Amino acid sequence: MTDTTSTNGQPPARLGADRLLDDLYSGGARICFANPGTTELSMVSSLARDGRIRCVLSLFEGVCTGAADGYARVSGKVPMTLLHLGPGFANGIANLHNARRAGSRIVNLIGDHATWHLEYDAPLTSDIHSLARPVSREVVYLDKTDTITDGVKAAFAATNREEGGAATIIFPTDVVDAPAAAGGDLVEEQAYQPSPVAEAALDTAAERLRDAAQVIVLIGGTALSEAGVRAGSALAEALGGRLLMEPYPAIVSLGGDLPMVERQAYFPDDVIAQMGEALVVLAGARMPVSYFGYEDWPSQLVPEERLVRLAAPGEDAVAALEAVASRLGQAGKDAPVVAPRQPVASPAADENLSPASVVEELLVQLPEDAVISLEGSTMGGPWLKQAHRAKKHRVITNTGGAIGQGLPCAVGAAIAAPEARVIALQSDGSAQYTLQSLWTMAREGLKVTVIIAANHRYAILQTELKRADIPLDDPVVSKLTDLDHPRVDWVALARGYGVEARHARTNGEMAEALREGLSLDGPLLIQAELP
Amino acid sequence: MTDTTSTNGQPPARLGADRLLDDLYSGGARICFANPGTTELSMVSSLARDGRIRCVLSLFEGVCTGAADGYARVSGKVPMTLLHLGPGFANGIANLHNARRAGSRIVNLIGDHATWHLEYDAPLTSDIHSLARPVSREVVYLDKTDTITDGVKAAFAATNREEGGAATIIFPTDVVDAPAAAGGDLVEEQAYQPSPVAEAALDTAAERLRDAAQVIVLIGGTALSEAGVRAGSALAEALGGRLLMEPYPAIVSLGGDLPMVERQAYFPDDVIAQMGEALVVLAGARMPVSYFGYEDWPSQLVPEERLVRLAAPGEDAVAALEAVASRLGQAGKDAPVVAPRQPVASPAADENLSPASVVEELLVQLPEDAVISLEGSTMGGPWLKQAHRAKKHRVITNTGGAIGQGLPCAVGAAIAAPEARVIALQSDGSAQYTLQSLWTMAREGLKVTVIIAANHRYAILQTELKRADIPLDDPVVSKLTDLDHPRVDWVALARGYGVEARHARTNGEMAEALREGLSLDGPLLIQAELP
Repeated sequence: MTDTTSTNGQPPARLGADRLLDDLYSGGARICFANPGTTELSMVSSLARDGRIRCVLSLFEGVCTGAADGYARVSGKVPMTLLHLGPGFANGIANLHNARRAGSRIVNLIGDHATWHLEYDAPLTSDIHSLARPVSREVVYLDKTDTITDGVKAAFAATNREEGGAATIIFPTDVVDAPAAAGGDLVEEQAYQPSPVAEAALDTAAERLRDAAQVIVLIGGTALSEAGVRAGSALAEALGGRLLMEPYPAIVSLGGDLPMVERQAYFPDDVIAQMGEALVVLAGARMPVSYFGYEDWPSQLVPEERLVRLAAPGEDAVAALEAVASRLGQAGKDAPVVAPRQPVASPAADENLSPASVVEELLVQLPEDAVISLEGSTMGGPWLKQAHRAKKHRVITNTGGAIGQGLPCAVGAAIAAPEARVIALQSDGSAQYTLQSLWTMAREGLKVTVIIAANHRYAILQTELKRADIPLDDPVVSKLTDLDHPRVDWVALARGYGVEARHARTNGEMAEALREGLSLDGPLLIQAELP
Repeated sequence: MTDTTSTNGQPPARLGADRLLDDLYSGGARICFANPGTTELSMVSSLARDGRIRCVLSLFEGVCTGAADGYARVSGKVPMTLLHLGPGFANGIANLHNARRAGSRIVNLIGDHATWHLEYDAPLTSDIHSLARPVSREVVYLDKTDTITDGVKAAFAATNREEGGAATIIFPTDVVDAPAAAGGDLVEEQAYQPSPVAEAALDTAAERLRDAAQVIVLIGGTALSEAGVRAGSALAEALGGRLLMEPYPAIVSLGGDLPMVERQAYFPDDVIAQMGEALVVLAGARMPVSYFGYEDWPSQLVPEERLVRLAAPGEDAVAALEAVASRLGQAGKDAPVVAPRQPVASPAADENLSPASVVEELLVQLPEDAVISLEGSTMGGPWLKQAHRAKKHRVITNTGGAIGQGLPCAVGAAIAAPEARVIALQSDGSAQYTLQSLWTMAREGLKVTVIIAANHRYAILQTELKRADIPLDDPVVSKLTDLDHPRVDWVALARGYGVEARHARTNGEMAEALREGLSLDGPLLIQAELP
């Protein structure tokens, strides 16, 4: 902490920046993912004077927002980001889009020009509101020092609405540079509480399910917790049905003694086949819709009459699942007996890697209570199909489809759960959008093992093109979907950022690299060469 | 090009995507900087069938938009970008902010969900309009196939308004997938034409200048061309005044037999001192304003009564400068005699590098007609102070302050001027935001020599903090402004992307690496270690 006495021996006056920080702290903020510029220097100075809030620097704003998202998902607490005007914030939008879909509670702080300077349209001036609105439950502009506390209250309150989300505070430099009284404890920390499902809705759901021939319990949101997975499974079991999870869970508990959870499929035809004729109970999950609109397929994949809307994303899905089970006379039943896990064993050491063999090796080595940050189709499907065979762990996925989430989320997860091992199971294409995350992993000494699934192409695009009968070997198509001229050397990139790294071409190399990575008290990157 | 016959031997129906491409082509688009996703695959397929438009893939959208900006500045033509929905576009906003300040003409294409799919709020749905508006002169939403041509016309027209800028076209997948007639030549290519300054305004300016004691001619926008620099210098000379340029020129011609141009300073106190009591003639430049608002300094740095508003950014400043000279009886005068250039010589080979010595070596080696993409304060000031001593060249700078512009702009410049040598003179901090540019340099074999000024800190922030008496050695301040735990190894990063690279610690190493870089038919990166 900086010496807070000024040159004349008097304690310096408290400024708006200090007040803002006091209020954020009393509201529960304990960490700040930052990439500051000139308009944020008063906040930097105040963070230095204050010393209570951990500051984590990243080289790119998308790392800050993605790390905040990962931190929020794992901890349930409210991190801050500190970003530079409209353009700096803009670089963080993609991962805030994912955070919005995940319901992650975040408070973004954006410095802006002094109120009296705005009209001069200096180079960095832009319409920050217009940029922030699509990814913020509320955008608060602090136009005067005496609105700071109300602004902070409004921001925290907004993060608690419905399923949660980010709020954005824009602070002009003159407001945070003006004298202000100390903040004290004016903002009260409010934990997130999903709202209860109405009794009548529980009754209706139970009635519809009582004699249903086929049932799928589709869990999402708060029902992705251990308690939710158990409650969902218990209800599905009682009804002779199946337990599914939404396709892109914000954070889901899997493995160990938890029942297996089937994942909702990706393509609309697959989802329709998967859902069959079942009644689909929505427990914290959104109704199944097609990820993109395809000409011959509907957007809504389960007709309204087969949906049982038990608990919306912001509602208490776990309690609702238990209440319905109780109404059906199944309350207090033990969770279903989990079939003994298939034994796991390392795949043949001298064979080349495949997504399946990477999964098998990770099943062998994954430590208890690990967190997996999963991004990309190459490993996403394969892991989630087998995750029940691993020790108990949590999986974070890309909720909003804005790519470049996996590595930053791993940063945030590792900071939120320093005792846990974090594995970033990551496609190479999407890893590029926020690869600067590696530097923050090295700087903070985070226990993250990054597995880059390197197939050197945009595999999901090639899958889509094949479905549309577009030839992949056309030179333009190849130029826009192949990443192999030149092939990226992830080992070199990682070392450039101070992260040790290994190539793995065979299962044996993978096993060895993974053992090394999981034993380190810091990050390691493994470039897994895949077909 | 793909075989355009379908399986039944009939030519396939033309689709909206083909129509859109026809119209863009007839409007003048010849290149597409792309990072497509699923919603853009119909455009990818159409680009493949068409084959007339060069497609350049980047691994991150900020590279696409920055490259489009560089291409537009150097060529004066209109490039396209192809980006994926709101989040993909969001990653390109920062460099579009700079493009807006530069008046770069660009047409952005953003794929969106099918019109009928939007209401289902699938994961990637977002408010694209709200994101695009702050960086677009016009946002066009193509809601029907028969609005495509009018939409494209509107987009190109918008890029020509005032000083130019980007327009954004959002195309839903169902609109580009629907059958459509061929486009033909319905959109006419319109070159950018600045509007003429009114005669009365020229008279007024001449009157005010006739007996002025001290004059500064401040050039910007179109007056940054060779003709503009000569015309500005001639007028300044005739009035016994000085020639200045705006602080962040979009693209300015310097060196060779061109008169020296002094750059407007950065900090408000410096600008005020620099402007003295002179009348300041605005010739394509915006009036001097403070980059940020500082408590004790005004935003407007030259009082209104000392401003001669000759030509606004969208007006023909070159003609206006010449017309005023003519009214003052100075027409047809030869451009002022340029003092013989100070001879250039390599600095002492065994001494460590400094920004000044990097500049001196570059003065020695810079080839005629090179383009320098300049970003960051470490090299920006030093180069622009000495640029008149180099051979004739053009300099691109960061017009909007959104960092991460330099490397992508170098990509676009090298594609626009394949015969020219491009030098990216780049600070290490800002290079991080779009380092994926290196991959596109390697992929396209671009003749770009990248000089990373590696001082491993956010130097501009430390300068600002010093001015505000905030101690740099405070642990929090250091953590948020020092980049040396760990130090980034740019040589490793470059090699990871397939770009050859060298470390340079001494002037001799710099000279050698630069000779190598400037002789290659492709990119080379030099990590210049600076204090």
